[in-house]
Amino acid sequence: MSGTSLDGIDVAIVDIRGKRIKTIAFKSTPYPKAVRAALLNVSTVAAGAKEVSRLNFVLGELYAKAILAMREPVDLIGMHGQTIYHEGGKHTLQIGEAAVVAERTGVDVISNFREADIAAGGQGAPLVPYVDMLLFGGTKKRRVALNIGGIANITVLPEGIAFDTGPGNMVIDALVSHMTNGRQKFDRGGRIARTGRVNEQLLRKLLKHPYFKRKAPKSCGREEFGREYTRMLIDTELPLPDLLTTATELTVRTIADAVEADEVIASGGGVHNRFLMERLCLMVPVRSSAEFGIDPDAKEAIAFAVLAYQTARRRPGNLPSATGARYPVILGKRSFSQGPATEVRRGRLRR
Amino acid sequence: MSGTSLDGIDVAIVDIRGKRIKTIAFKSTPYPKAVRAALLNVSTVAAGAKEVSRLNFVLGELYAKAILAMREPVDLIGMHGQTIYHEGGKHTLQIGEAAVVAERTGVDVISNFREADIAAGGQGAPLVPYVDMLLFGGTKKRRVALNIGGIANITVLPEGIAFDTGPGNMVIDALVSHMTNGRQKFDRGGRIARTGRVNEQLLRKLLKHPYFKRKAPKSCGREEFGREYTRMLIDTELPLPDLLTTATELTVRTIADAVEADEVIASGGGVHNRFLMERLCLMVPVRSSAEFGIDPDAKEAIAFAVLAYQTARRRPGNLPSATGARYPVILGKRSFSQGPATEVRRGRLRR
Repeated sequence: MSGTSLDGIDVAIVDIRGKRIKTIAFKSTPYPKAVRAALLNVSTVAAGAKEVSRLNFVLGELYAKAILAMREPVDLIGMHGQTIYHEGGKHTLQIGEAAVVAERTGVDVISNFREADIAAGGQGAPLVPYVDMLLFGGTKKRRVALNIGGIANITVLPEGIAFDTGPGNMVIDALVSHMTNGRQKFDRGGRIARTGRVNEQLLRKLLKHPYFKRKAPKSCGREEFGREYTRMLIDTELPLPDLLTTATELTVRTIADAVEADEVIASGGGVHNRFLMERLCLMVPVRSSAEFGIDPDAKEAIAFAVLAYQTARRRPGNLPSATGARYPVILGKRSFSQGPATEVRRGRLRR
Repeated sequence: MSGTSLDGIDVAIVDIRGKRIKTIAFKSTPYPKAVRAALLNVSTVAAGAKEVSRLNFVLGELYAKAILAMREPVDLIGMHGQTIYHEGGKHTLQIGEAAVVAERTGVDVISNFREADIAAGGQGAPLVPYVDMLLFGGTKKRRVALNIGGIANITVLPEGIAFDTGPGNMVIDALVSHMTNGRQKFDRGGRIARTGRVNEQLLRKLLKHPYFKRKAPKSCGREEFGREYTRMLIDTELPLPDLLTTATELTVRTIADAVEADEVIASGGGVHNRFLMERLCLMVPVRSSAEFGIDPDAKEAIAFAVLAYQTARRRPGNLPSATGARYPVILGKRSFSQGPATEVRRGRLRR
């Protein structure tokens, strides 16, 4: 899995037997700086088909390397790839050439998960709710799966309704980066936010953002809570720690306001922000996904292993209640390894 | 199949039972003008990831429509897609979203054939020689499969060596377009060339082009025989019909010089140039692929049906002798229809 933050490559090795899902190993590898820069560039109008074609193969090699570095035998690879364009309900483009990964690893690859959902009238996202349902749905409790990434999103179980609640770490990270002149990229453990105080007046104003009142399904991103939003906060000239504490509280409050559940199962980078989690605990019954056997950092990567497993069995992987698709569809494309790989390499498989 | 000429979409319906390959129907549909213009543009640096993403879905819809218009039941679709970038041995990019085609037709689709060959060290082209081998290889005769498109290429059987011999129709078409101020795009039946005379002095000069002396494997295109080449011919100020006859003779001679065979099986648009074929017949034992049950216009489309059939059976589809790959590999990616389609559509397949 590679997220839109362009951080790099998350690899999870997952043992799946029916509904029993066990994580064997997990590792994150950052993109080389030049690749990250090229990916930022290719999403703009500056780059053409040649650059898309080139990066597709470059990422394929990087993904293969990241998988091989795990030194774990696998039967199937689920590869989300890197989104370089996404217009929900219209079209989407993930790159990272699966044929390269299949060739280097000797393992079949399922990739390009989002297109089939769009073809069936869906937004092509979110796709993780299907896996939330599988992982956490088998109970009568009213549960919410919460992921706190740059944006925070929830899946309401058992209905399978899913939407973004608002900013997760995005505004917090941007403020910390500003406060430390880029030396720190996030508020480790929420230590800085703990030193500040919530500015109630600002918080009330922030909570009036029209996004929070909109009805689900809804999604948000840098358009709403990106650079301009942070700039607006800084321009208030409030003490920076207070701004950070207020931004943290905004994440907490907008999650809590959206959630009504017996149990909230949290994952994503935000669960490492202890201050944020403590505040959230006071409002909703939140537990880390780790308590359910799912490494909170690995959940998205695990999800695409599960979705690949579904596809390999010709089973659907989207939740129409989450994506808006007309019906459940089989996601992804299968690329083929050259099956007993060593035989092929020795030329024995020639016809 | 959609060629690099950006003419449009060729659909062949093919009945394949083992090595028995029968063409049921064939139809060409031109691209809408706006799509053709957008495709020309996207290959340049002017367009970004958004345009690639958009066109990928636009072409998917067009391909689905072209297939559905055949009103023939099919079990599997092989879809080459439209090449918008190709750098042999490095990377390649074909668009036309297979998930859209699978969704609209209710049939599984194999697409993106070239990537796996490149991943295995090949040029990603040519891929048709594998099918030439299958179609025409089962004999002790020394055969050559010849395709006269813009560029002419041959597959030497049984070795499976394949290369471009030089210009096919490219120079002829460009001259006719110049002579008729764009009113005619090709020399129908070779009628104009038949009225001129070969300028032997010019022909000798043209035959000295270094490309013709280069050793196979080799490939050529607009870089060698495109606009500048035609301009050079026009600048000789020879009578235009004589230029056309000489250009036709150049195609004939360079093919004949490259071929040493008991039987040449010709396909591609060039076979409709009766004058060209008559000249060629005087030098090599040439027959139309139609005599072997293969519509000469449909051969490339038929080839990708055969390659899809191979992939669906997890069988390789490249000829290392033609592409330079390290070994034979299974080509393409499989996109999944939601089969039994009606059940899905009625919501019965929900889990």
